[in-house]
Amino acid sequence: MTDKILLSHGSGGKLAHDLIQFSFLSAWANPILSRLDDAAVIEVKGRLAFTTDNYVVQPIFFPGGDIGKLAVCGTVNDLAMVGAIPHYLSLAFIIEEGLSLNDLEMVVNSIKQTAKTAGVDIIAGDTKVVNHGCADKLFINTTGIGTIPSGVNISGHHARRGDAVILSGTIGDHGIAVLSQREGLDFTTELKSDCAPLNGLVAEILGVSTNIHCLRDPTRGGLASILNEVAEQSGVSIRIEESKIPVREEVSSACDMLGLDPLYVANEGKLVAIVDPKDTEAILEQMRKNQYGQNAAIIGEVGEEHPGRVVMKTRLGTSRIVDVVVGEPLPRIC
Amino acid sequence: MTDKILLSHGSGGKLAHDLIQFSFLSAWANPILSRLDDAAVIEVKGRLAFTTDNYVVQPIFFPGGDIGKLAVCGTVNDLAMVGAIPHYLSLAFIIEEGLSLNDLEMVVNSIKQTAKTAGVDIIAGDTKVVNHGCADKLFINTTGIGTIPSGVNISGHHARRGDAVILSGTIGDHGIAVLSQREGLDFTTELKSDCAPLNGLVAEILGVSTNIHCLRDPTRGGLASILNEVAEQSGVSIRIEESKIPVREEVSSACDMLGLDPLYVANEGKLVAIVDPKDTEAILEQMRKNQYGQNAAIIGEVGEEHPGRVVMKTRLGTSRIVDVVVGEPLPRIC
Repeated sequence: MTDKILLSHGSGGKLAHDLIQFSFLSAWANPILSRLDDAAVIEVKGRLAFTTDNYVVQPIFFPGGDIGKLAVCGTVNDLAMVGAIPHYLSLAFIIEEGLSLNDLEMVVNSIKQTAKTAGVDIIAGDTKVVNHGCADKLFINTTGIGTIPSGVNISGHHARRGDAVILSGTIGDHGIAVLSQREGLDFTTELKSDCAPLNGLVAEILGVSTNIHCLRDPTRGGLASILNEVAEQSGVSIRIEESKIPVREEVSSACDMLGLDPLYVANEGKLVAIVDPKDTEAILEQMRKNQYGQNAAIIGEVGEEHPGRVVMKTRLGTSRIVDVVVGEPLPRIC
Repeated sequence: MTDKILLSHGSGGKLAHDLIQFSFLSAWANPILSRLDDAAVIEVKGRLAFTTDNYVVQPIFFPGGDIGKLAVCGTVNDLAMVGAIPHYLSLAFIIEEGLSLNDLEMVVNSIKQTAKTAGVDIIAGDTKVVNHGCADKLFINTTGIGTIPSGVNISGHHARRGDAVILSGTIGDHGIAVLSQREGLDFTTELKSDCAPLNGLVAEILGVSTNIHCLRDPTRGGLASILNEVAEQSGVSIRIEESKIPVREEVSSACDMLGLDPLYVANEGKLVAIVDPKDTEAILEQMRKNQYGQNAAIIGEVGEEHPGRVVMKTRLGTSRIVDVVVGEPLPRIC
């Protein structure tokens, strides 16, 4: 017996078989996964959403989550951002030889719990092991399938002049929590990643309005990046107000100290909804009832002049252009 | 300008945007991918097949293919092994900082060509970059969706006593080709990986028989492993004959020299079909008409005694149990 992952755990042989049977299948058991054919077989109908993400966060355990929780939430959230109900995930590991089996077990259980919370089944998987030094502990890919209810038509291309920009809560929590853990910073001891599945929140706001035009979760690149993407895709400008954007005190101080701008720091449990102004209040009220939307706020609106541009009114009353990030201030945050 | 991948290529910022626009989108262009929403939206109906694989082959270029071709073929083949028609792939990169942009471009083009040959579209993607030394050049995840024609019901659970075991061609070509490249062996100069999309071949044999019970592609762990899996899943025994299994001279000599058994060496363009004996000849004849099935042969049959056991009649006339692999003789072959 071994307490570490060996190359043979990825060989397609006996150790791989045992890892799949006694760890993965026993945690994620469902009748589709348990068939273990080369592909899972499912029955679905209508419009499907399909999305993929690799997770390479370092460290793999951080305040408020771990790489397993992140891998489920991140992909569930990408499905939710086109208004889909997430159903199925595939899960593929790249493991560095020498990873402790105990750490892997913790990640496997975290995946189980988060998948249960989000209401998704893991129906396909793969495990590769690479030599020590050829990866960094554990990388995960999750790819998801969801169904889009009829009448729902949400896209980054659908922002329109006059739409309100609603943010579901504070920004920067995930990025700063991971960074603090990685660098051993101690001025953020209370801060946790906001990592959470947002499909429930999305279903609830879709229940009160059919006029939600765009949804985006501001992960890598932060709020600034997704606003720029939407401005470009929809050919509109977006104007936001700094004073309206909720930022935790700890995130704000950490950013000041580290020379970071919270607008560019990753979130894993927040969304931006760009909505018809006539439904803004109803959506905001509904959002605030959900545990992940308590601090929701209207942070700006969509305009037409200078298509592709995002402008922020600062606390000082001046205006500045919020550009896309050029370097990589926070690598391996997700 | 840079000729190498930087961390910022994975930041969600400007360099990442340019890489996606000018490299990935221009190579793989299709209207679904080009939307660049958080999830792709597709219309599908009926029974779907869904499968995922990580590819970590080392080196990333080898005789007969590269990691990009492999990533498309491997996932297309897993869909084909449940009788599905492959339609869509997601493609997610983990890139080591410092990878040459030229190498990445070659892989991107290889993906384009192979996807075209296999008739699949890449509709979702992700790119992560990790620091130098935290990955080994390039890892790829592909996850695929296919549709299963009505009446097709293929599974490793469906092998029945009396079924014939057909192998579509020579074994061990991929594993030995990759190993030779990696170790600089020069006695296999003519040998190429068999890496190929098998969905055409599968569609053709499904055209001549509705009595194909199982299909498997003998990748990691080789022919021995997939026969053991099917024997276990179907609760049957499988008897094969060594003299009937096609092995190239070069593979055979390389295996002798390296102490490897070709039964355990990976293939990436071969399949095993377990079929009703009354259709064996029709299927074999059809298979041999396809470029990837020219050397197809009946290599054994399914029995009932000792469920889960695979037995081989050797060239010497004796019988031996063909067990699952225990160690990992050939890491990172796929």
